[in-house]
Amino acid sequence: MGLHQNKKGQLYLGIDGGGSKCRATLYDSGDRVLGTAVAGRANPLFGVEATLASILAATEGALTEAGLSMAACGDINAGMGLAGVNVPGLMAQMRQWQHPFAHLFITSDLHTACLGAHGGGEGAVIITGTGSCGFAQVGDARLSLGGHGFALGDKGSGAWLGLKAAEQVLLTLDGFGPATALEARLLAHLGVEDALGIVSRLAGQSSATFAAFARDVLETAAAGDAVANAIVTEGGAYISAMAKRLFELQPPRFSMIGGLAEPLRPWLDGDVVARLSPTLAPPEYGAVLYARQQLTQ
Amino acid sequence: MGLHQNKKGQLYLGIDGGGSKCRATLYDSGDRVLGTAVAGRANPLFGVEATLASILAATEGALTEAGLSMAACGDINAGMGLAGVNVPGLMAQMRQWQHPFAHLFITSDLHTACLGAHGGGEGAVIITGTGSCGFAQVGDARLSLGGHGFALGDKGSGAWLGLKAAEQVLLTLDGFGPATALEARLLAHLGVEDALGIVSRLAGQSSATFAAFARDVLETAAAGDAVANAIVTEGGAYISAMAKRLFELQPPRFSMIGGLAEPLRPWLDGDVVARLSPTLAPPEYGAVLYARQQLTQ
Repeated sequence: MGLHQNKKGQLYLGIDGGGSKCRATLYDSGDRVLGTAVAGRANPLFGVEATLASILAATEGALTEAGLSMAACGDINAGMGLAGVNVPGLMAQMRQWQHPFAHLFITSDLHTACLGAHGGGEGAVIITGTGSCGFAQVGDARLSLGGHGFALGDKGSGAWLGLKAAEQVLLTLDGFGPATALEARLLAHLGVEDALGIVSRLAGQSSATFAAFARDVLETAAAGDAVANAIVTEGGAYISAMAKRLFELQPPRFSMIGGLAEPLRPWLDGDVVARLSPTLAPPEYGAVLYARQQLTQ
Repeated sequence: MGLHQNKKGQLYLGIDGGGSKCRATLYDSGDRVLGTAVAGRANPLFGVEATLASILAATEGALTEAGLSMAACGDINAGMGLAGVNVPGLMAQMRQWQHPFAHLFITSDLHTACLGAHGGGEGAVIITGTGSCGFAQVGDARLSLGGHGFALGDKGSGAWLGLKAAEQVLLTLDGFGPATALEARLLAHLGVEDALGIVSRLAGQSSATFAAFARDVLETAAAGDAVANAIVTEGGAYISAMAKRLFELQPPRFSMIGGLAEPLRPWLDGDVVARLSPTLAPPEYGAVLYARQQLTQ
């Protein structure tokens, strides 16, 4: 970049908006992190207003950490990966936003995660955190799998593991299911004593509440509990099947992202694990790569 | 009742508050229906304020139909069966309500449904509508099963059938599940064209939205679709197992209540169906029976 370039375009903001949180990270032109911050969930499927509020809160936090005020937004190019914008109407609504940035480029959170994981190159990713989904981009081909959200899908995700475990424990407490160590684990985790306590703590709660029990389910499965093992095995089989569908596009790289990527590994097929490559950069940096791609097109 | 009895106590209001709606019915001392009305859901687990609002709205509707104003509440004895009050803290909150009635007696919606079904006598009931649950009262023994609510449990219920069907269709559309006639049925039911359409219409929706697809699932199963049949068979097996657990209390009568009681029958065990007796009165009349039992104790 030349000496005479004005300040516009030297700062890039990468925004990763998902179903459980929104992260914004400010980079300078040399890819150094100037500031980063996390705010609440940013999935327009559950409210465009709340999504915009989360995006702005994360942005303000990142700018504050960088010693900047929101007035600096006019000099910043932003890239944003957002859950839910694969729904055409929601993408249209997001594009109508009178945002404060010099430019804002929006794509799906899967796309930016994939770009980040593979340093801007082609590849496939599976994200297993609170939810689960898969994405691949190879040439002009794109494939997006799963990610249907809590209760409707997201098999193998943290929320799904927690939900299935809670279902099984409630069946067991009613006398319909086999004894399982999940029962004592869930009661202790929630600090309750019986089925009523479980229901009163979990009814109507969000995916994050169920995902908070996922590591207990994985540990209980690893310790040999048959009920927990059946749940995790089913989840792992789904994630493996998803990977194999993504491999049909012959992606040059494959990565897994999210809090469950590592702990789920023992339950994945060996030939899926064998193809794993480390992620090269986080999703918010993928969002910056996307913004740069769009600016230079 | 004597000629000199004053008006107090001559009118009884029966309230049936559940997870999808609240019905109030006003009876005179001769059990004639003077007015009835339905309002929104009344499950304090999802908000005590909203529950009270639903109860009052249904009450006002019933009184209006009877030609009375809310000022008449002071002369009315009310019985109320309410979802969620098996959670002790919620029952305590409901009992603190400064209600407008001469007397208000609160118990669970399962208890009043059972009292209504068996004309105030002992027995067992299974309710399969939007949700599913079972209850028996024989002597001092009470048994309450299921009813853990949408997504956590309620197997065999309308919401569960709809949710399982939607999950399967989304798996099929992603290439993970076998072909099923549920796919075309669900797309037509929602008026959408693909998985994104399904997710945008169902994500975050309440149990009632999923239950609205239950009859399609039952019809598809009856027409021989393997995927639909597997779902309904699993749901029916759970309801049959629930019935057999209730039978351990040796209830003199057994009834099934709710919109799915009839259509689910072909998927229940023959020895469960053989024990079915018709319901003698609706849950809101069971609530009146409960109020009378409490007043005369």
